[in-house]
Parts: sequence; C-alpha cells; structure tokens
Amino acid sequence: MNNETKNNAGKLKIIPLGGLEQIGMNITAFEYGDSIIVVDCGLAFPEGDMLGIDLVIPDVTYLKDNIDRVKGFVITHGHEDHIGGLPYVLREVNVPIYATKLTMGIIEKKLSETEDLLKKIKRKVIKFGQSVNMGEFRVEFIRTNHSIVDAAALAIFSPAGTVIHTGDFKVDYTPVYGDSIDLERFASLGKKGVLALLCDSTNAERPGFTPSERTLEHTFDTIFGEHRNTRIIVATFASNVDRVQQIINAACKYGRKVAVEGRSMVSIIDIATELNRISIPENTLVSIDEIKNYPPEKTVLITTGSQGESMAALSRIAFGTHKKISVGAGDTVVFSSNPIPGNEKAVTKIINELLLKGADVIFQDAHVSGHACREEIKLIYSLVQPKYSVPVHGEYKHLYAQAKLAGELGIPKENIFILRSGDILELDENGAEITGKAPAGALYVDGLGVGDVGTSVLKDRQRLAVDGIVISTIVVDEYSGSLLSGPNVITRGVIYVKESEEVIAEARNMLTEAVTAAYDKGISDWGRLKNIMSSTLSDFFWKKYKRRPMILPIIMDV
Amino acid sequence: MNNETKNNAGKLKIIPLGGLEQIGMNITAFEYGDSIIVVDCGLAFPEGDMLGIDLVIPDVTYLKDNIDRVKGFVITHGHEDHIGGLPYVLREVNVPIYATKLTMGIIEKKLSETEDLLKKIKRKVIKFGQSVNMGEFRVEFIRTNHSIVDAAALAIFSPAGTVIHTGDFKVDYTPVYGDSIDLERFASLGKKGVLALLCDSTNAERPGFTPSERTLEHTFDTIFGEHRNTRIIVATFASNVDRVQQIINAACKYGRKVAVEGRSMVSIIDIATELNRISIPENTLVSIDEIKNYPPEKTVLITTGSQGESMAALSRIAFGTHKKISVGAGDTVVFSSNPIPGNEKAVTKIINELLLKGADVIFQDAHVSGHACREEIKLIYSLVQPKYSVPVHGEYKHLYAQAKLAGELGIPKENIFILRSGDILELDENGAEITGKAPAGALYVDGLGVGDVGTSVLKDRQRLAVDGIVISTIVVDEYSGSLLSGPNVITRGVIYVKESEEVIAEARNMLTEAVTAAYDKGISDWGRLKNIMSSTLSDFFWKKYKRRPMILPIIMDV
Repeated sequence: MNNETKNNAGKLKIIPLGGLEQIGMNITAFEYGDSIIVVDCGLAFPEGDMLGIDLVIPDVTYLKDNIDRVKGFVITHGHEDHIGGLPYVLREVNVPIYATKLTMGIIEKKLSETEDLLKKIKRKVIKFGQSVNMGEFRVEFIRTNHSIVDAAALAIFSPAGTVIHTGDFKVDYTPVYGDSIDLERFASLGKKGVLALLCDSTNAERPGFTPSERTLEHTFDTIFGEHRNTRIIVATFASNVDRVQQIINAACKYGRKVAVEGRSMVSIIDIATELNRISIPENTLVSIDEIKNYPPEKTVLITTGSQGESMAALSRIAFGTHKKISVGAGDTVVFSSNPIPGNEKAVTKIINELLLKGADVIFQDAHVSGHACREEIKLIYSLVQPKYSVPVHGEYKHLYAQAKLAGELGIPKENIFILRSGDILELDENGAEITGKAPAGALYVDGLGVGDVGTSVLKDRQRLAVDGIVISTIVVDEYSGSLLSGPNVITRGVIYVKESEEVIAEARNMLTEAVTAAYDKGISDWGRLKNIMSSTLSDFFWKKYKRRPMILPIIMDV
Repeated sequence: MNNETKNNAGKLKIIPLGGLEQIGMNITAFEYGDSIIVVDCGLAFPEGDMLGIDLVIPDVTYLKDNIDRVKGFVITHGHEDHIGGLPYVLREVNVPIYATKLTMGIIEKKLSETEDLLKKIKRKVIKFGQSVNMGEFRVEFIRTNHSIVDAAALAIFSPAGTVIHTGDFKVDYTPVYGDSIDLERFASLGKKGVLALLCDSTNAERPGFTPSERTLEHTFDTIFGEHRNTRIIVATFASNVDRVQQIINAACKYGRKVAVEGRSMVSIIDIATELNRISIPENTLVSIDEIKNYPPEKTVLITTGSQGESMAALSRIAFGTHKKISVGAGDTVVFSSNPIPGNEKAVTKIINELLLKGADVIFQDAHVSGHACREEIKLIYSLVQPKYSVPVHGEYKHLYAQAKLAGELGIPKENIFILRSGDILELDENGAEITGKAPAGALYVDGLGVGDVGTSVLKDRQRLAVDGIVISTIVVDEYSGSLLSGPNVITRGVIYVKESEEVIAEARNMLTEAVTAAYDKGISDWGRLKNIMSSTLSDFFWKKYKRRPMILPIIMDV
C-alpha cells in the first residue's frame, strides 16, 4: 500500500482499466483500503488501423502491481467484451471469479480451452440476491435483463458507501427466460442511499423504451408463416440464447428441424442446454450433416456471422466457401441482428451476395436491442437516486448522452464523471474527484504474442500496407570497403511485377551511379552509404510514381 | 463495327462500364448502329482492402476499342461519382462533353487542374429542355432535383426507342434554387412511349418521400436561434450549394459572418457564385484569416469533412491539427449530413473528439437526402410507364429493391434487368436480353500510376500489412558457391525491435544451421537455397509467434 492510499483510506476508488480509449474492453477496479475488486474483464476487437492484430486485451499492470490486495473478479454477464480478457489476464492475476450460472458456464468453457486455467482458478457461482464478501467489499448480484441470459447488475457495498454497477441491461417486463429485472431491489437500495451509479450508456441517445425480446415471437411467427415453402436460415449473435429459443419455438410450431452452425453458437447452446437456460424439444435439433435428409422447407438453419464477419458461417455460406451448406433461390435468410457500427459495409456485402444468388433476404425489423434506451435509464436513475453518476459502456458520445440525461434528472454537473482509461476517481459522501492516473490501456494480441506488437510495429505495417517495400542490397569488401556486388533492388507491394523489370533496372542504374559517386568522394561509412541508397531510391519512386515505399538498404561485407 | 453489331443494327445496347462491382463509379454506354454515347464518367473511392489506392476509375477499354464511334459524354450532374473519372478517361478518349451550366463549371475546374485537357476537349453547356444530336442519338436534358444544383435526367432518343436515365434525383416541390423537377416532361414522354427507364435506386428501400431541401430552413433557424452565444461550425458536403445557401441565409438573419473552409467547398462556391447558382449578400463572406477578428458568436464556419475524412478540415479542427481553427467549449458543431455506409466509425470518432474538447455537437436531423424514396420512384415509373426497367445507382440490394418495386408496379419480371459491369443489354420493342460482355471494371490509381497496381500488388500489401516482412541475406562465392557472409535477418512490421534482438539472433542461428547443412549436402542451387531459407524462417516465426510474415531470401555473389 503506498502513501497516497493510506492518506485516503476512507475513500473509495473507481478505476476503469480498459476504459474509454478501448471501446468494448470492460474492466473496472474498485478499491477501498487494502481491498481491490474487479468488475468484468473484457476484450476488444481490433479497429481498422490495427493491422494484423487478432484481439485487444486490457493492460492489467495496476492489478499485478497490487496483486496482494486483489480479491477477485465479479462478472456481470457472459459477453466477450466482459469476459474475453480472462484467459489472458488470469495467467498473471490468479484470483477467484464470481459470476451467475450461465456466465460461469461460458467462462469455464473458455478457461478449459487455454492451458490448465480451469484447475488453477477458484470459481464460485452466485445466485441473484446472494452476496459475496471480498475483503472490505461485499458484492450482491441483482437480476437484470440483457441479450444474454443470467445478466447481473452489482451492488458493491464498501465502508465509503454503496455503488451500483448495472452491467449491460435493459428492462424487459416479459423476458423469454427467467424473471424481469429486479426493480424492487434497485428501489430499496436507492432508498437506503447509493453513493454512485455506473450505468450502461449504449442506447443513451435513443428515446423511449427498448422493446421486449418477446416481441420477436410474433415477428418469427409471421416470417415462418409467410415462408412455408423455403428453407429458412436465421443469422444472429452466438450468445443470444433467448433469440435461439424463440427461433426454435417457431421451428417447432411450423414442424421444422433445426441445425445450428458456427462453433461459438454450438458451444453456447450446449452450455445453455446443460444449465437449463434453453429448452429444446426432443427430435428438433439435427446435425448439419443430417439436415440435408429433410425437405428444405422443413428445416431451419441458425447460424453465426450476422455482423458480416468474414470467417463466420454465414459469410462462408453466402460466398460459396462453406463445405456443407450452399444457398440460392428457395432460401429465406433472416438477419436477426442490426449491424454494430463499423460493420455496415461487411453486412451489406453479404446481403448483396445472398440476393445475387437468388435468396430472399430479410434484414430489417427482426431484432431488438439488449440495451436500455433513455426512458429505462431514467427509470433506473429515479429508483437508485445516486449521489454521483459515472456513465459506462459506450463510446464517448454515448457516455456524454447519459451524462446530459443525468444532469436533466437533477444530478449536479460536478457529481457526474466521464472517466477515461486509468483515471482514479476517489469518492465518498463528502466529495469526489479524479486524483490520479493508474497504468491502463490496451495490449495487442497477434498470434501467440501478447503486447509485443506495439505502435512502432503497427506503423511499419501501415507503411508497408500503403506503399510496399523496396529492398536494396550491396556487398562490400570488409577491408577496402570497395563495392563487390550489387546494388540489387527488390520490391514487394510497390508495382506490378511484369511492368516493373525495366523500372527496377532503371532504379538499379541510378543507385549504382549514386553509390559509385559516393565511393569516388571517399564515402565508405555504412551509415552514410545507407542514407545515400535510401534517398536515391526514395526520390526515384516519388518522382516516377508519387509513392513512398519503405526503403531498406542492406550492406553486407565479405 | 464488328459483325455482331451489324447483325443487331436495329437494337439499342446499354452497357454499364463501371457497374455493379464498383459502387459509385457511374458510367454507362448507349450504342446504336455506328454511334456510342456515354452517360457520366465517375470515380470511386477505395474500399478498405484496396491498400494504398487513392482512387478507382473505370476501365474504358471498350470506348478506346470503338473510339471512332464514340460521340461524346453526357453528364447528369457534378458529383465525383459521376464526373470524377473524366480527367483520367479524357486523356485517352478525346470526345466532347455535354452538361448543364454548374455541372460544366465543375468539370472545367477539374480539367484545368490536369494537363491542358481544358484546351483539348470540346464542351457544350446544355439548358434544360434543350437537346443535343450525337450520331444516331438525340439527348434531351430534363430538369430534376438533387443535392447539387443543375442536376439533369436524360431522355435518350434512338431509332430503337426512347430511354430515360434519371441520373441521381429526388422530387422537391420547393427547391432552394431553381424550379421543381419537370414532371410534366416525364409524363409527356411516357405518353409517347418509353422503351426503358434507368432510375436512381439509392433510397429504393426507404418508404415514403424524401423531405424537401427547404425543410432545413426551419432546422437551421432553430439551431441558430438556440445557439446565439456560441460560434457555429456546420459541416456538410462540399458540393451541396443549396445547403450552403441555407446556412448563409440563417447566418445573415442572425447577423453572423461566414467563412468557408475546405479546398473543394471553396472551389465549388466560387464556381456557383460566378454562375449565379448561389446568392451571397455582400459583407457576409470573410476569409478564414479574417474571421477571428469577429466575436465568435457572430461567426459561422462552413466546412468539409462531414463524412469523417481524415484529411478534411473538420477532422483537422477536431484533432487540433488545423493551422487556423481550434475548437472547444463555446462552439456548436452541426453535422448537416448523414454518414454514408462505411463512414460511421470515422464520423463517430470526430464526434467523440469534439465532445471531449467541450464543444456542443448536433449530429441528428440536420440533413435531408438528395435521392428519391419509394413513393418518388413509384411516381416516376407511373409517369414514364417504361417497357423495360433497368435500376441504376446503388449497391445490389438497392437495385434489387427497385426491381421488386418495378415488379409491384406491373412491369413483368422478364422486363426488369439488374446489370453487372460490362453486361451488354440489347433491346428494342420486340424484346431485350443480355447478349454478351464488354471489357469493363476498375483501374486503381496510386499516386501517378493508373492501373499498375493490380491484384498481385494488393495481395502483397495485404500480406505485409497483416504480418510484416522478414528479409534474409547471404553472400556466396561466385565460383565455389561457398557461404562468404551472413545469413543476416532483418524484420519490419513483425515484432517490437527492442525485444527482437535475441529473437533475430535465434532466427539467424537456425538459418545458419540450415544453410550449412544444405551446403554439407552439396546443395548450392540458388532456388533450393532460397527455399530452405524461406521455410526455415517461416517455421521459426510460426512456431514462436503463430505469425506468417512474408519471407524474402536474398542471395548475392561476389
């Protein structure tokens, strides 16, 4: 424990370790005295300029530096942006995990795939209404609704006061599985006094109320009723167990067999089935190999890839690279999803391709969001009546929209905090302020490497991506420094090979002249020679093509 | 003229040369007997996987191969996706251009910037209602409404019948400049009989009617009225002269000075002013340098960059890299635009940044589309009553939506054609069919090079972008083939340099072993040696990192 911590022993600290700069990577530390607990541990998917990066995970230096005080992870729900970082982080931060049943089931499946984390990490399933003691903290799991079953909000009790973290949520009075969000508990906590509310901001710009998941029952009934003579393919999010349940219900009603395609979806449905979070009538599910034994109009295929992911099942089906399923006239493809911002183009490409192949495509109005809209957010604020507002989950503009809403609901501006990655917010009944910055941010995962691809490597990749590379080699005499061979010039990603032979010859001639001239002037220092080689080639490609390939001069001696 | 053409001399051919595969690149050839005319000549902006490509222009091999028959270009309006290809194409296809006044003004500005095309190319400004004779064709320009002034539809008269090409259009009964679309002319042509309708599909999925541009008068009035105490920055499309007019009107009403920022917008406003397509009261416009002499709340800045383009004015203002304008609290930034699909992320990044800097941002409901919605499309079909329907302008799903609509309006399915790039549609009163394929497609422009960056170069760039490059060099004796120097190993874009020294040493050792072993076995053939070097390094980086960098073995002899 450092001095600063001692001086503020009476205050609670809230520190987003993924935070704003890394959308989707949810991980927040709560600290009081000698106890630290961590809510969620997500990953993010790379943005367009993170070339070659597979995943982005949080930098948990702060947890490693304070490992003796870290009491464990409490997880709100089983989505990748809330649990995906665990297999990486737990290797270095071996602490217990607390989560609800389905959430834990998904986490365990994940851990079992990587090393023997499953053996090493302590885990405890928590029921709604139950609490877990974690050092100075007690954390209670509160039932909410979301686009995955068993989603929880958290009441975090500390000596400095109670904080409510909603996780991702919506208010669904008629959920498909289980009960409605426990509004009564939010209300009774609010009555006792809540220090701070960390509330989901994803839909904070959208007016009104998010429709119930159950409204899709009618939607699917209509779609199935109107397409009795075609095979139906429904693409949706792998983890949306309730959605899959409703598609299966419609399939059963219309006497269709169902096959599920896409590794992640198959896995989650297995887990949900085992944990009784989905109910599939016998003789409904068939394998992807068996389904061709039934008439197409008596089958439904539920598949991943609704976001246009190029390696997912739907994309492979659309572009004809799926080994078992082909698509065409006589198919109705339903997108039970909306494109997440950034995925619009990819989704449209798949829709175009499906239409071109003759399929009927339904890509509107077969989805509802899993996040609270403005009226729901206002409801939660009104029940909880927090002293401080800390909008979470969303891009800055979403957090900003909730901050504005909180202001409209009467929370003073100085009590509303939009935190950035690593911000240390210290708070108690007497006040709240950002007092410092913890190490936090993103680590890039590329293949097996975690964090070894940084900004400099990405800059090189971006440069290579835009204009390619020109490599020039010469061999010089170790003693005299005189030119023994070369210069040779090789390009990759710069110009079309067939056309380039004479261009390369031209470049080589210029280079030979430049290097010879340098020798004539008595220049044999490798650094200066390399500079001359670089600038000669750089000028050449700029003047000829207005391109700036990366230039790599190589000198070898014998 | 080839045989095929002779045999079908009585038929009209319609050939999209940009076409479906290259969204936004509008260029369509119409051919009858010994006459070819071309409607529009657009460019497209590169998609995400076209690394380093600046622009995409149409492959006009078909026009070059038939240059003696090409009578000229008729241009519907002055947007980049309809005129942007001209400076490239006209160098090889020197034929006259026909367009309305503002359209020609923009084209002339474009041509004056590249070589001396302005001197070489014949041009004629056509008024609405006027016709131009082009070989076997006569083309009449019909007034429409769009998000740029002087937009035209074309009635293309040929011995085989009349074709109407709407260009990009909407029906605006209360346009800001000029008159409403000439519906009467569509009706009277329809009455006389129209062979085919080529109609804008952009909004064919959207129900109802696109609101009038003039509805924004009230919008801007409200925004200006509610933000009397801040500077107002409005970002919109550079070419939307009517939009700029309305912003200027609001500025005048509220006593604000206006500065325009962004090269393309300044250029188009200059042209529009000169041609009386915009009316700016005296003492309203000030330069970007002068505007700081006025109180912020008495100024408006109109700027480009509403699509999040990283080099445009708004992006530079938001991220603090603009030389003359900084933004912060006390600014209201209005996005008078909607993100074009694919630009959502980039736009959101700018909104986030503006909010972070303390600006107020209005990014909803300050824009109307320039394209016809379903009811407008239905209106045009009902007036024109074409025998054949050829949906144009949009992705496949938009064309498909219009095709469906045309079907609902009673056009038989076999009379509706969604054409792909190069398709030759031959038609007359007796029938229509796709009879062949013309050379067509996309040429990539990278710097000064046109078409020299093809698939193979892009594949190299993609490979380099994802995993970088490893270069390995050895020097061998010219006569004995024995190893004189190396192997050396250099990486770019693979691993972080600081960490990589020992990795490189490890790779070099493995390589030395492999090359030495090869020599011991008597292998000195360069091809085989290079293969050994490649596979050794490839294995090394795969096993260590699960990465597949491009491997480039270089052998030099002395």
